[in-house]
Amino acid sequence: MKKHNFSAGPSILPETVMKQASAAVQELDGIGLSLIEISHRSKEFIAIMDRAQKLALELTGLEGKGYQALFLQGGASTQFLMTAMNLMKSKAGYINTGAWSDKAIKEAKRYGEVIEIASSKEKNFNYIPKGVKIPADLDYLHITTNNTIFGTQFHALPQTEVPLIADMSSDIFSRELDYAAFDLFYAGAQKNMGPAGTTLVIVKDSLLEKMNDDVPSMMSYAIHAAKGSMFNTPPVFPVYTSMLTLEWLKNQGGIKAIQKHNETKAKLVYDEIDRNTAFVGFAAKEDRSYMNATFNLAEGIDGAAFDALWTAADISGIKGHRDVGGYRASIYNALPLKSVQLLVDIMQKFEKTL
Amino acid sequence: MKKHNFSAGPSILPETVMKQASAAVQELDGIGLSLIEISHRSKEFIAIMDRAQKLALELTGLEGKGYQALFLQGGASTQFLMTAMNLMKSKAGYINTGAWSDKAIKEAKRYGEVIEIASSKEKNFNYIPKGVKIPADLDYLHITTNNTIFGTQFHALPQTEVPLIADMSSDIFSRELDYAAFDLFYAGAQKNMGPAGTTLVIVKDSLLEKMNDDVPSMMSYAIHAAKGSMFNTPPVFPVYTSMLTLEWLKNQGGIKAIQKHNETKAKLVYDEIDRNTAFVGFAAKEDRSYMNATFNLAEGIDGAAFDALWTAADISGIKGHRDVGGYRASIYNALPLKSVQLLVDIMQKFEKTL
Repeated sequence: MKKHNFSAGPSILPETVMKQASAAVQELDGIGLSLIEISHRSKEFIAIMDRAQKLALELTGLEGKGYQALFLQGGASTQFLMTAMNLMKSKAGYINTGAWSDKAIKEAKRYGEVIEIASSKEKNFNYIPKGVKIPADLDYLHITTNNTIFGTQFHALPQTEVPLIADMSSDIFSRELDYAAFDLFYAGAQKNMGPAGTTLVIVKDSLLEKMNDDVPSMMSYAIHAAKGSMFNTPPVFPVYTSMLTLEWLKNQGGIKAIQKHNETKAKLVYDEIDRNTAFVGFAAKEDRSYMNATFNLAEGIDGAAFDALWTAADISGIKGHRDVGGYRASIYNALPLKSVQLLVDIMQKFEKTL
Repeated sequence: MKKHNFSAGPSILPETVMKQASAAVQELDGIGLSLIEISHRSKEFIAIMDRAQKLALELTGLEGKGYQALFLQGGASTQFLMTAMNLMKSKAGYINTGAWSDKAIKEAKRYGEVIEIASSKEKNFNYIPKGVKIPADLDYLHITTNNTIFGTQFHALPQTEVPLIADMSSDIFSRELDYAAFDLFYAGAQKNMGPAGTTLVIVKDSLLEKMNDDVPSMMSYAIHAAKGSMFNTPPVFPVYTSMLTLEWLKNQGGIKAIQKHNETKAKLVYDEIDRNTAFVGFAAKEDRSYMNATFNLAEGIDGAAFDALWTAADISGIKGHRDVGGYRASIYNALPLKSVQLLVDIMQKFEKTL
């Protein structure tokens, strides 16, 4: 009896991936050893790491285009630090679209001047600032492409000549995008890619060459790139499971196919939010996320009966983040359409009780 | 058909742990969700993290003694950086007993003066410097309690009044030790504790209070401690599997019982190294590690037949590190006595072919 998992992250992964990952913890591909007890220098794990890196580049259309894929540790939170340590010469620009941008800004301030180019903080981050003019003298511009907590997403990228850096933790591999517009982007695995414990960084070779030298080894993209993500022992299980998920995605038809699937799911839930008199959407319509649909109860509506209904229906993880309240349906790549349909049915059932 | 796994790390874990971990990837304790798709803020995962922390303190005898256990990311390599960032005011002492100490020293030099108090580098780290006088004005003294590559281990701790910091990556939880003599010790999980991807740090509260303030969030022990290792998304699977291993260790009778088991295994293999005319031990006898037994072929002996024998016997992972050559039998907590007995049999069989 599997629950319908709308968790914001760590979050649902494809069922076949969980089966394969589970089997590999017992024994990897008939080698007489578990995945988690083999050396990271074994030919088996080197093949896994290589395959994961190749799939990440292939799926984003960056293979052979002068990019490298790194699998690191420490989550996006460590990337807030590493991006600034490696790239800040004097000043960088940040577009502040939520709690995670805010944290990235805080860490970057240690290493230089941070210019908050635009922010939607005054409206509790319910929209994406648009038509923003980017100064030409920045070391880089940093954006958060999808804002998990607030349910907003960049649907058009800022136009700029300075290196574009993005935290894509909650929408990587979910949609076709001009990935080559970025000089570096990163994502904690635990939404669309794998279990918590590894972080994908995709970085342009030409940017690697311009990075600061005086950076501690574990914080240096150049060192991790030179060592093929094997400078130190990599997080074997999270990397393996990410590889499985990327393989699954490729078999689904890649990003193009999954985007269509995600659009169908998003349309279903947003249409219901807009139609249903018991709920109001949180994010500005034109900036709505295709990954996290945030919605609140309409004024005067008591949600207790709704909570009882979705709980009874084995729906899990739709409580909203405390900064927004209400509900959040995270509809990542691996979430089946039937789970979204069930949620919509429950929303309708609730409305009828009012 | 399970191989006999002598890998230096990632390395063997108890078979029951691998079974339980594998099952949890399918479904955690009948909750209708996989371990790797639940929120780290769920009551289930909070209980796992709490239990892992409690077991780490309990097993080292530090529960209720003013210590905290943290489960972080980034391996010992990140600890080389974090210890210095958080603790270095002006100068620190390091005892250099091998490649990992060397790396720790390199990272620490960014943050202050590093005094290499003693080193065994001139003998390719085949012994542990003893009778070392520790200056009283250091911010801390850093040692590596067990040297995986060279097969040496501190059997007596340096006497000092300054805070004692240790990298215990390859011998934590393997032997009774005055753990309260340390102010902070850390270990990558992937030897005696769990799969690669999490790092245990045990730190004294009184040391936490004296740490440097101006440290990036992800590098700050104080922040990780204040947030109960949940400042950012923890590596769920590695933490869970570490918890299972610590639970297993407790059920074995704790560190006291496992030490006896480890001593039996070490005696068996070292007695054979000393007896067998085909091999010579690498490390000085009095400093031999109870975790990694390093040995080379005796002069004029060709190892090809030995390699064929152990390979045919389904022994895995005994090739020595390139810095030492020869062989290394890593005999961590979870390695059964029968695997060591088999290796000894093969060593004897090889000798008879000469």
